[in-house]
Amino acid sequence: MEPALARERFAAARRAHLATAGPTGPHLVPICFALAGNVLYSAVDRKPKAGRPSGQPLRRLENVRHEPRVAVLADHYEERWSRLWWVRADGRARILTDGDELASALASLAEKYEQYRAEPPLGPVLAVDVERWSSWSGA
Amino acid sequence: MEPALARERFAAARRAHLATAGPTGPHLVPICFALAGNVLYSAVDRKPKAGRPSGQPLRRLENVRHEPRVAVLADHYEERWSRLWWVRADGRARILTDGDELASALASLAEKYEQYRAEPPLGPVLAVDVERWSSWSGA
Repeated sequence: MEPALARERFAAARRAHLATAGPTGPHLVPICFALAGNVLYSAVDRKPKAGRPSGQPLRRLENVRHEPRVAVLADHYEERWSRLWWVRADGRARILTDGDELASALASLAEKYEQYRAEPPLGPVLAVDVERWSSWSGA
Repeated sequence: MEPALARERFAAARRAHLATAGPTGPHLVPICFALAGNVLYSAVDRKPKAGRPSGQPLRRLENVRHEPRVAVLADHYEERWSRLWWVRADGRARILTDGDELASALASLAEKYEQYRAEPPLGPVLAVDVERWSSWSGA
């Protein structure tokens, strides 16, 4: 896939998947995200999830504190497999808890998702500095 | 989410995402799969992919040889976020290259996917012994 098309498809994807590495093996979650230049932003909601005691740090945040390298993948599935494609961004993650970059990250997310305009995420935000793009398409 | 519902949703998903851990960070690919009991099977096509020199081992296989722990996630996305859900299977991967289990894995994959009935995968097959199920739903 042409790099420009890969990037366009990735940026337009409504959700992607984030893999982090931790002491108990790889971790994997779906994420909503916004791409700004070569940095990807994803909000981490602080609201306690069912089954996760309030105050317990999210595993994706714990993981990137120890191993910042992450992979983010956006892909398309349909039953006609010749139309499958995926685009992967490999990079290093940082955790934003305040400052100008957090504000602009939240603005990028609100611009892409009306759901965030209706109910702004609380933060923190995970920033991924993309170091390498890979892509594949079945066609 | 009730464990029975989580498992049912996972088993019915047409594609999932596989995260492995490697020396250069986490790796992430979309997969088709079949669930048989507590073992998940995913075919690894040996056909060289664009950009991957023929004969070069796939990174997911290289990774699990060194770190068998993997995560597989099936999820649902739509714009009404109250309907989001995901189910994750954490486990250990094995590589099947021959034997009865490979044959039954390929049969499970062919039963689920007509695409595999039309064109059987060549193998090998990645088997994941699921050790833990996690799930979340936005509702």
